[in-house]
Amino acid sequence: MKTTDKQGCNALVEILAKQGVKRVVLSPGSRNAPLLMAFSRSESIESYVVVDERTAAFMALGMSQRSGEPVALVCTSGTALLNYAPAVAEAYYQHIPLIVVSGDRPIEWIDQDDGQTLRQYGALSHVVKRSYDLRAEWTLATDGWYFNRCVNDALLTALSGEKGPVHINLSITEPLTGETDCPPRPERLVTRIPAARVPDEESMSLLSDEFMSARKVLVVAAFMQPDEALARALSQLARLPQVVVLTETLANVRGEGFIPTIDRVYSVLDKSEWPEFAPDLLITLGGSLVSRMIKAFLRQHKPRAHWRISQGDRVVDTMQALTRQIETAPAPFIEALARRVSAVGSDYSARWHDKERLATRLHDDYIASIGWCDLKAFSMILPAIPAGTALQLSNGTTVRYAQLFDCPQTSRNDCNRGVCGIDGSTSTAAGASCVDEAMTLFITGDMSFSYDANGLSSSYLSPRFKVIVMCNGGGGIFRFIKPTAGLPELERCFEVHRDIPVEKYADLFGLRYFEIHDEASAAEVLPRFFAESEQPAILAVHTPNVYNAEVLRGYFRRARS
Amino acid sequence: MKTTDKQGCNALVEILAKQGVKRVVLSPGSRNAPLLMAFSRSESIESYVVVDERTAAFMALGMSQRSGEPVALVCTSGTALLNYAPAVAEAYYQHIPLIVVSGDRPIEWIDQDDGQTLRQYGALSHVVKRSYDLRAEWTLATDGWYFNRCVNDALLTALSGEKGPVHINLSITEPLTGETDCPPRPERLVTRIPAARVPDEESMSLLSDEFMSARKVLVVAAFMQPDEALARALSQLARLPQVVVLTETLANVRGEGFIPTIDRVYSVLDKSEWPEFAPDLLITLGGSLVSRMIKAFLRQHKPRAHWRISQGDRVVDTMQALTRQIETAPAPFIEALARRVSAVGSDYSARWHDKERLATRLHDDYIASIGWCDLKAFSMILPAIPAGTALQLSNGTTVRYAQLFDCPQTSRNDCNRGVCGIDGSTSTAAGASCVDEAMTLFITGDMSFSYDANGLSSSYLSPRFKVIVMCNGGGGIFRFIKPTAGLPELERCFEVHRDIPVEKYADLFGLRYFEIHDEASAAEVLPRFFAESEQPAILAVHTPNVYNAEVLRGYFRRARS
Repeated sequence: MKTTDKQGCNALVEILAKQGVKRVVLSPGSRNAPLLMAFSRSESIESYVVVDERTAAFMALGMSQRSGEPVALVCTSGTALLNYAPAVAEAYYQHIPLIVVSGDRPIEWIDQDDGQTLRQYGALSHVVKRSYDLRAEWTLATDGWYFNRCVNDALLTALSGEKGPVHINLSITEPLTGETDCPPRPERLVTRIPAARVPDEESMSLLSDEFMSARKVLVVAAFMQPDEALARALSQLARLPQVVVLTETLANVRGEGFIPTIDRVYSVLDKSEWPEFAPDLLITLGGSLVSRMIKAFLRQHKPRAHWRISQGDRVVDTMQALTRQIETAPAPFIEALARRVSAVGSDYSARWHDKERLATRLHDDYIASIGWCDLKAFSMILPAIPAGTALQLSNGTTVRYAQLFDCPQTSRNDCNRGVCGIDGSTSTAAGASCVDEAMTLFITGDMSFSYDANGLSSSYLSPRFKVIVMCNGGGGIFRFIKPTAGLPELERCFEVHRDIPVEKYADLFGLRYFEIHDEASAAEVLPRFFAESEQPAILAVHTPNVYNAEVLRGYFRRARS
Repeated sequence: MKTTDKQGCNALVEILAKQGVKRVVLSPGSRNAPLLMAFSRSESIESYVVVDERTAAFMALGMSQRSGEPVALVCTSGTALLNYAPAVAEAYYQHIPLIVVSGDRPIEWIDQDDGQTLRQYGALSHVVKRSYDLRAEWTLATDGWYFNRCVNDALLTALSGEKGPVHINLSITEPLTGETDCPPRPERLVTRIPAARVPDEESMSLLSDEFMSARKVLVVAAFMQPDEALARALSQLARLPQVVVLTETLANVRGEGFIPTIDRVYSVLDKSEWPEFAPDLLITLGGSLVSRMIKAFLRQHKPRAHWRISQGDRVVDTMQALTRQIETAPAPFIEALARRVSAVGSDYSARWHDKERLATRLHDDYIASIGWCDLKAFSMILPAIPAGTALQLSNGTTVRYAQLFDCPQTSRNDCNRGVCGIDGSTSTAAGASCVDEAMTLFITGDMSFSYDANGLSSSYLSPRFKVIVMCNGGGGIFRFIKPTAGLPELERCFEVHRDIPVEKYADLFGLRYFEIHDEASAAEVLPRFFAESEQPAILAVHTPNVYNAEVLRGYFRRARS
């Protein structure tokens, strides 16, 4: 088959495919035409075409998040690349291996008023693991070797240790769309054999001694990719009477004896009890925590020791109490640890589980007592989700409401908690839904929804993509959180987008439309909304904004009433 | 009146107001709540609230472009700031003074998995004139002085010489929404007295000698802010027989004897005539040129001397022939030059004007001969624009079509030609329309339109905002330009968004809807579309994509048929 005559473009596609890239999201342009040719004619990499580069990048993020595989992005020269920045920042902090490729004009034309040109090389350096500046045309004997080595390096960098995005800026000269029949020379693949993934015997011995000296060990798991080996290893630990495993909704680890509803349980602890619930040893896994309460609690009641298990090499001291940065993959480390440690006399686990039972009872009573509102809606929506559904949550209040419930039937739960933006939630969910045959349920707020409406504009929406928009008056979180709730600017500056016409968006983008505004309509509509269909579907959930905030504040006072 | 107790936020607003900032576009968040309080309670600065930061930034760009004044932008921490990047890059290359303010968490919390946090300081350094990192709380005696000095510096930097954006990153500690009754201490204003704006006597004498030694002087004006003094000075020069003034549609200078239709005229020059039309001395004004033809012509027929008149300090050698970088404001320099130079024996001007008459005749004949298509539609739309309308053009084919016509009744013509992106055209036009009472007509392509649909989502659309969407099958430019026109991927990878439901967008965003698909409907609908109304309006112009490209290619062959 004919292909572009730009050697670099062909080599790039071949190395990416060999390194495990199976999907690329392309955005149209003329400077990147040879890249579009090379990618769209590849049989190994599936290509998706998305015009808005911000949407494209968040879709790629969702695809990589869901598949666990690297996903490539290709844009043209100019501001196109800068539209990738929000998603690439999210990928950086969420440890997602996006391979960002930008077509560029040759360096001699930068800053020469020649149109659609800016300084692209390094433009994302704040938010990628490494940046490369390469040329698509090879003239010197060493050019092909240099290109091959850099692209291999880019992929190994993206995929090693704490994964993350890399940026390859590729300058391409005119003419842009020459073709050739010559099969490109085969590209060499460099694979990486990583070093052992657990600390050595001496370190493990020291760590297990430290573990055994603690009567209260708290494991807190924040957002992660699903990891069954880790779940099994944590289950081993959770059997010990001195160990409590608290998992956030986004931690994607489930196991017997875990407590999956941090905020629900924490909010029934009385202030006087805090010291006994505070750990001697804290072990944290995963990224940043959604629960502000648990962070504040642990900062106030600092553990004697805090181990952070992470493949990153940066001191991340979230609780201001870090004593050990354990640079290892979580599952093999926890497995090794579980083999070495044993029960000590402690009622720490029992105390937490007593509180969990109390919290669950108070939760159920409270839910039964309230009228129609966001919290009530979540209490009906979450149990109605079909088993095996992948749940995507937007930031703002959505992820916080979801965290109050246990929702064991979902296959996984994701949210852009790397930087916690609302800017690409819809696109991320839409991208994730392209990857497999599972139903994807995306729950979002009205403000986030209207922000990222372009996420629904691509032609790749799966018929098994379901969207729920919480129409709660726009920016519900600002009415709940203390800093903004009492401000005279609340309505004008914070709760904007108060009346989002979800039905019109549904019509525009071709989704089936449903709406609910009370318990009766919820009970009637939810089964129909979740039913299989040949079209994606959207559900508007109308709730009263003032009452929503009252109910949520009441929830956290329920134990004290 | 009560205000935020963060000294820096109040000081910032006061200094900005004193430095001439009259408008700010705010995006909601909690970290920037004190900034929202300070700005929205200011009586000197009008605030606009826009949720999507990409839209917000392009709207601010449009406001500054139209008003000639600095406009501020305020966002919260996290990826919010990165969504500003495309518009800030455009502002940098378009020389628009945006004052970007990002609320940030205190530096000790960056990279600590504490949520909504990334390395914000310097994140826009590639595309701003200068970056500042300040703290909203003042504790040391020198803090207030340092803050005042930096903010004054930021404004003077943005507004001096070649104007451009600056970035102030402002860290704010909790609690965020404390209020105080104390009137803030008055802030000192630093004003700038710039040095003389023209070269000294000796330089002027040398330059006028060089000018007088040329028999063929070509002045080419690319995009600029309207400048009547410059137009008058250029008119003086244009009277000389050796001088030709070519102005692009976006140059915003009009005067007797100028040739305002570069591509139309250039395309009737025969190859054999090129040498006599090539200048001895080329003088360029403004930013990057839309006309690829004139650039290619001048690169091929290099002038003996090329003067670039600009306040920038970088060598910008667009024609590969630059001999003098004249760092001065254009109007006083051209005035001074015009006073010193006089006629020499030359038929250069006469030859170009002969060609202009020929080109106009051939243009009119060609237009009369063609059926319904983009070019025909422009030939009907442009004369129908009411006098005094400000015209905004999107990138892609739109600006190129418009450039083939003279449209003397508009008050000004703008397009994002700094980096030539399609990502914010609609938002820019919407922002510009907020500034004054004039009608704003925005002409865009279907692909650009769907890209930046959020530009229509704000509540600030003026009733005198009119939008024309050229529905020509998506990405019409890719079917016209050589690199992509013949590719098998044309429809799948380039001409995406082929069938944009403009009417549904109109319904969603509350615009009156019109459509045309032939000459008859155009004649009937255009007057109604342009009539005054209490609602903004949108017009879908349906044209056939294959025929469009044929007609446009034929246009450039018309002189040779």
